[in-house]
Amino acid sequence: MVGNGFMGAAHSQGWRVAPRFFDLTAEPTMDVLVGRDPDRAAAAAEKWGWRESASDWREVVARDDIDVVDIVTPGDSHAEIAIAALEAGKHVLCEKPLANSSAEAEAMTRAAEAAAARGIRSMVGFTYRRLPATAFARHLIAEGRIGEVRHVRASYLQDWLVDPASPMTWRLQKDRAGSGALGDIGAHAVDMAEYLTGLRVAEVSGLLETFVRERPIAGSSSGAISGGSTAPPTGVGEVTVDDVAFFHGRFASGALGSFEASRMATGRKNALRVEVSGSRGAIAFDLEHLNRIEYYDASAPASEQGFTSIIVTEPEHPWVSAWWPAGHLLGYEHGFANQARDFVEAIATGADPNPSFADGLHVQRVLDAVEESAASTGAWVGVASEAASVAG
Amino acid sequence: MVGNGFMGAAHSQGWRVAPRFFDLTAEPTMDVLVGRDPDRAAAAAEKWGWRESASDWREVVARDDIDVVDIVTPGDSHAEIAIAALEAGKHVLCEKPLANSSAEAEAMTRAAEAAAARGIRSMVGFTYRRLPATAFARHLIAEGRIGEVRHVRASYLQDWLVDPASPMTWRLQKDRAGSGALGDIGAHAVDMAEYLTGLRVAEVSGLLETFVRERPIAGSSSGAISGGSTAPPTGVGEVTVDDVAFFHGRFASGALGSFEASRMATGRKNALRVEVSGSRGAIAFDLEHLNRIEYYDASAPASEQGFTSIIVTEPEHPWVSAWWPAGHLLGYEHGFANQARDFVEAIATGADPNPSFADGLHVQRVLDAVEESAASTGAWVGVASEAASVAG
Amino acid sequence: MVGNGFMGAAHSQGWRVAPRFFDLTAEPTMDVLVGRDPDRAAAAAEKWGWRESASDWREVVARDDIDVVDIVTPGDSHAEIAIAALEAGKHVLCEKPLANSSAEAEAMTRAAEAAAARGIRSMVGFTYRRLPATAFARHLIAEGRIGEVRHVRASYLQDWLVDPASPMTWRLQKDRAGSGALGDIGAHAVDMAEYLTGLRVAEVSGLLETFVRERPIAGSSSGAISGGSTAPPTGVGEVTVDDVAFFHGRFASGALGSFEASRMATGRKNALRVEVSGSRGAIAFDLEHLNRIEYYDASAPASEQGFTSIIVTEPEHPWVSAWWPAGHLLGYEHGFANQARDFVEAIATGADPNPSFADGLHVQRVLDAVEESAASTGAWVGVASEAASVAG
Amino acid sequence: MVGNGFMGAAHSQGWRVAPRFFDLTAEPTMDVLVGRDPDRAAAAAEKWGWRESASDWREVVARDDIDVVDIVTPGDSHAEIAIAALEAGKHVLCEKPLANSSAEAEAMTRAAEAAAARGIRSMVGFTYRRLPATAFARHLIAEGRIGEVRHVRASYLQDWLVDPASPMTWRLQKDRAGSGALGDIGAHAVDMAEYLTGLRVAEVSGLLETFVRERPIAGSSSGAISGGSTAPPTGVGEVTVDDVAFFHGRFASGALGSFEASRMATGRKNALRVEVSGSRGAIAFDLEHLNRIEYYDASAPASEQGFTSIIVTEPEHPWVSAWWPAGHLLGYEHGFANQARDFVEAIATGADPNPSFADGLHVQRVLDAVEESAASTGAWVGVASEAASVAG
Repeated sequence: MVGNGFMGAAHSQGWRVAPRFFDLTAEPTMDVLVGRDPDRAAAAAEKWGWRESASDWREVVARDDIDVVDIVTPGDSHAEIAIAALEAGKHVLCEKPLANSSAEAEAMTRAAEAAAARGIRSMVGFTYRRLPATAFARHLIAEGRIGEVRHVRASYLQDWLVDPASPMTWRLQKDRAGSGALGDIGAHAVDMAEYLTGLRVAEVSGLLETFVRERPIAGSSSGAISGGSTAPPTGVGEVTVDDVAFFHGRFASGALGSFEASRMATGRKNALRVEVSGSRGAIAFDLEHLNRIEYYDASAPASEQGFTSIIVTEPEHPWVSAWWPAGHLLGYEHGFANQARDFVEAIATGADPNPSFADGLHVQRVLDAVEESAASTGAWVGVASEAASVAG
Repeated sequence: MVGNGFMGAAHSQGWRVAPRFFDLTAEPTMDVLVGRDPDRAAAAAEKWGWRESASDWREVVARDDIDVVDIVTPGDSHAEIAIAALEAGKHVLCEKPLANSSAEAEAMTRAAEAAAARGIRSMVGFTYRRLPATAFARHLIAEGRIGEVRHVRASYLQDWLVDPASPMTWRLQKDRAGSGALGDIGAHAVDMAEYLTGLRVAEVSGLLETFVRERPIAGSSSGAISGGSTAPPTGVGEVTVDDVAFFHGRFASGALGSFEASRMATGRKNALRVEVSGSRGAIAFDLEHLNRIEYYDASAPASEQGFTSIIVTEPEHPWVSAWWPAGHLLGYEHGFANQARDFVEAIATGADPNPSFADGLHVQRVLDAVEESAASTGAWVGVASEAASVAG
Repeated sequence: MVGNGFMGAAHSQGWRVAPRFFDLTAEPTMDVLVGRDPDRAAAAAEKWGWRESASDWREVVARDDIDVVDIVTPGDSHAEIAIAALEAGKHVLCEKPLANSSAEAEAMTRAAEAAAARGIRSMVGFTYRRLPATAFARHLIAEGRIGEVRHVRASYLQDWLVDPASPMTWRLQKDRAGSGALGDIGAHAVDMAEYLTGLRVAEVSGLLETFVRERPIAGSSSGAISGGSTAPPTGVGEVTVDDVAFFHGRFASGALGSFEASRMATGRKNALRVEVSGSRGAIAFDLEHLNRIEYYDASAPASEQGFTSIIVTEPEHPWVSAWWPAGHLLGYEHGFANQARDFVEAIATGADPNPSFADGLHVQRVLDAVEESAASTGAWVGVASEAASVAG
Repeated sequence: MVGNGFMGAAHSQGWRVAPRFFDLTAEPTMDVLVGRDPDRAAAAAEKWGWRESASDWREVVARDDIDVVDIVTPGDSHAEIAIAALEAGKHVLCEKPLANSSAEAEAMTRAAEAAAARGIRSMVGFTYRRLPATAFARHLIAEGRIGEVRHVRASYLQDWLVDPASPMTWRLQKDRAGSGALGDIGAHAVDMAEYLTGLRVAEVSGLLETFVRERPIAGSSSGAISGGSTAPPTGVGEVTVDDVAFFHGRFASGALGSFEASRMATGRKNALRVEVSGSRGAIAFDLEHLNRIEYYDASAPASEQGFTSIIVTEPEHPWVSAWWPAGHLLGYEHGFANQARDFVEAIATGADPNPSFADGLHVQRVLDAVEESAASTGAWVGVASEAASVAG
């Protein structure tokens, strides 16, 4: 695993826990954790249970005893590491966003396709696809339970930047993070909308805004999303990414999407919300209630229609039979264990996992198109797309 | 009162009930109901408790014993009736949208301003301003309780057109209704966003869509929103208005707005939802829970922050002391009684009521700008505005 | 109508509004309002729209031009007025609780039965039966949609006595009110449980508690539930009724009930909540969300089960077609209009309305049995019952 | 760890994960898993990551290299194992209920007290005390934020026995499980009410019911709560425990409690709900929304009062800083990791952990008193208690 920030902790938990609950065809082992700072890498490896640590990812990628590379670094290094790993014949799990630009994402996708021809698997970490609730929602929609999709409302609302005193982090620097709310959480909103509906966004129109343009630089950095350090600030840094992105999308089918990504949504902590409205029903999901979906069946008798709050913890629901009895809730991190399970199974059984790098590329292209629209007059910008539908 | 459709029933209830709960400075009397069809007007007058009925609004407007004209006809007749009434020295309450075009709305606003100089009052019926919950939300925001407004999410979601078999009504004809979801319910979303924040929308970018373009013509018409007749269809009619409108707005202050109006939001019956996010807090409202607001105070200790669900039925809340004890819920129609009370008091005390025709004109201009943006490339279109802030 | 307190306002609104929305077989007229204090009675009559006022109910009951007597006085006078009115051949609507003791309620029931033999109708005002949500819930249960009822949880939670400074009212005096939370709101919980399930409570075990035993006497009285006067207190009064009642019930069928009535439930304003759990499903209702029910269908596929939040505002739902379009919420007072409609129709069509005085007597007997159990060791006490099931 | 059922999986996850997130003073190692069936024990040890397995707990308890014994067997064996382990100088974590009878629980408590004098720690596994939400709720109540507690409503609602075809498990046999809903989930309701309020239940009055008295015996047993096997039934077994328990309690302070434990609450999967109403506020919790509490502050201005939905995932909340950023939800199993952390820290720092065996004994005595009350007339039965308040 390359990276030792917040995502490293989450992926480590996934690898650690998956074999204890699932019956896996192959057993993953937690071999080497790679981080630029050797001391911090060693500490993280010790803490999270990796056998070794290292500071040079190139050396590790070259090792024969390594089969899988899990990339959890900031987006600016994804392309280089992933392409090298794929070329070295390693299966690659890459955290989202796939890259900081479509050009990089395209190169990665070509590398992944070439590797796939040699039996090497790759997958991008849109982990929220691995929640039982979202996977079950996709299943219902794919079954036709809401009919033809007409519109999708997808927002990802957080509030950790509301306070102007919240410090700088690499997530607020364009050169490290690529974009702000758009790329970090807007990417999830786009992927979730596409995953649930199976439809591709074909064109977009949008805006980006940065409400707070300068922030204090914390005395020491940390892997936490919001900086989190309590040391006194050592100066002021310029925020070079958006903190709010609003955009509209038109899917290839003609369906409409309304998207919002905000780190300024006061009081919303981690609210990835999607509502899909169709000709026969609707489905809504909110990550702040991640064990539930709301399902509306418009084919029921009129007097009995309503949103049904399904607690997605029944053994019949995806992944749940490996976990706890009905009504015993899963948390944020379970997506990482389910993802680890699925990636291991894909490798072991020789199947192509999803979301593919091509899926990640597509999301990147949507984001690029939003940036292009926002930078001009807000007019519609088309999104190049190579596949009309979304595997899941 | 001119008009005998669904809105006529609602306004009649307002006039009937207001004097029984409020101590009014002047007592309204329900004199004449005007409708084009004399029989239907007579029946409605009898049913709703108006003393007389008439079929020619011009005659009624000319009568000396009439002081107030309440217009509840479709939007295409608002301008003519309202201007005539104002010129005849009648106080005018006009149901929203103020008109079907900005040109008409502008003429009405000029007439209202001229009349105001003679002590004649006018008001447009954005009744949702008259719910205790929304009025209290505005009060909190005006007090600075959520700080500087950063973004507003306002959607008005209905689903009565989801079913392609739902019949034609005048609300789906451009020549009668002016526009579809945009003008009918999007107007409420815009007015509510402006009312709550006190800010004007200065530019917009948006899209309009009509998913179902032909609908059966019902055997007999009715005043219900959705047609509602069960007689066999007599043909097929073309839907000439949008059933979905999505748009973004930028307020004069720089705050952002995300707006949606949909009659295709499966499972949502009457969900006018607004969430205002500010630097110190947030407030959310949903018309499907119209006795509540959700208030988030970001100045509370971090461990105690959360959305507080305030049941807005305390005697301290606007209008409530006239109604029932705490926790005894009000319904949709109470906005009409509160509106009648406020209009009567404004007339009796010589104050200018809100929302003014100028407010209604501004909303109309926002809607026009959305249509203009949607008709071209979705690019930003400015909204002419004469006043920077919104009275309330 | 006899009485001019808070309930008088609610009943007046029912009589006033019902003919404007429903097509009634007979038209009710609001003739005489009777109150002990002639001035207050006259003021209330003027305010609420009664043609006359009077101070002696005996004279009014004797009048030939009066057909219906609506009793909204405190419980201690119900028996005398109702029996006199029935004997005088008047149809009687009596606000709940039917009486302050079972003995009185029994005499009233006998009088009602004798009157019924002469075509005179009587009804007790458990108004919450007249909400579309509760009536529809009963309909679903009666249809077998939740199977055999196993247990019922019914609580009525208010908080207007939490503050020890909340003043004395007649509702806190045993000689006027009969009992406290038990008789005032516990009565609703019992009736609602019986109405929804169609089952009679056959035995009970319970406790009563008074947490605040002395309260200030307000300078002037008012009809509001909670006193409400702001005049300085003139002394201290003893609270002679319970402010909390908890009891268990066993229905004749063997089903169990858990009941709570509290005026000390901090933060709960008017939360009459009932959840009925059956072998095939469940239904929950909360008066603080009075336009909804939550319905659980245990016969759905396991993965799709969940509580469905049905907004009970469709034309198919009881009474709704007379009111507003789907999603336009009704409030507390609509129960009174629906009740007026049903009572008028029962009289006009010669049908026996429900809930009957016998139903009210039964509730009174349940309450008496709770008091008996609470006064001894909390052991089970049987409830005499003359009919096994509950009409509705 | 002794036991390899569902609780074994949960405790294993706690031991596995705690050291990866918390900085522990001592590092726990997962040494030996003990199960009666050697093959199943070996398989579970392999699956869950225990170094060895064994079939005789006596041998393991006698080993010098074992410091801590974690007991997750059915309640009938708790006393024997725990007492032996304590006498052998092992720290003991014992899953709830402490024992199947007060006599056994008392012997265990005596052994724990004797061991404590020698520095040996013991703790009973009421894991729901280890959720950030419940711990924070206790903190608020202990700080006086809801004032004097007046009443508590605590229910634990499940529905896995609604279907008469749901098979027999040891949890339905009195000789194995001690009692049914009462001992299994009612115990949690009692402990949670006592933990949150710091008050002891002093007397109770209640009832027990068994709605389904015979159930199919599944072809093979499993550790799942609800049996879960799909093999054809091999016969019919008698259910010898309650499936519903309702009881009232009076705390030593005079506060009242209303308790319900049901496995027949259709649609409720794992709803441990507690609402504590005090003179200055209220707090509500629902295990089906385990990352939240609802807090009502009755000292806020009247117009701003309401239940605040606090997402208990801030770094300021108990245990949370070791886990994920704000809004990233925890699940059911996190209580076990937090519990493991607290037990390790108590051992390492020489502090007495809570809940103690004495706390577990007290809960057992409450349950015994409920059984005694239910078996006679439902009258009040006192609960012997050695300490007036509850540590936490």
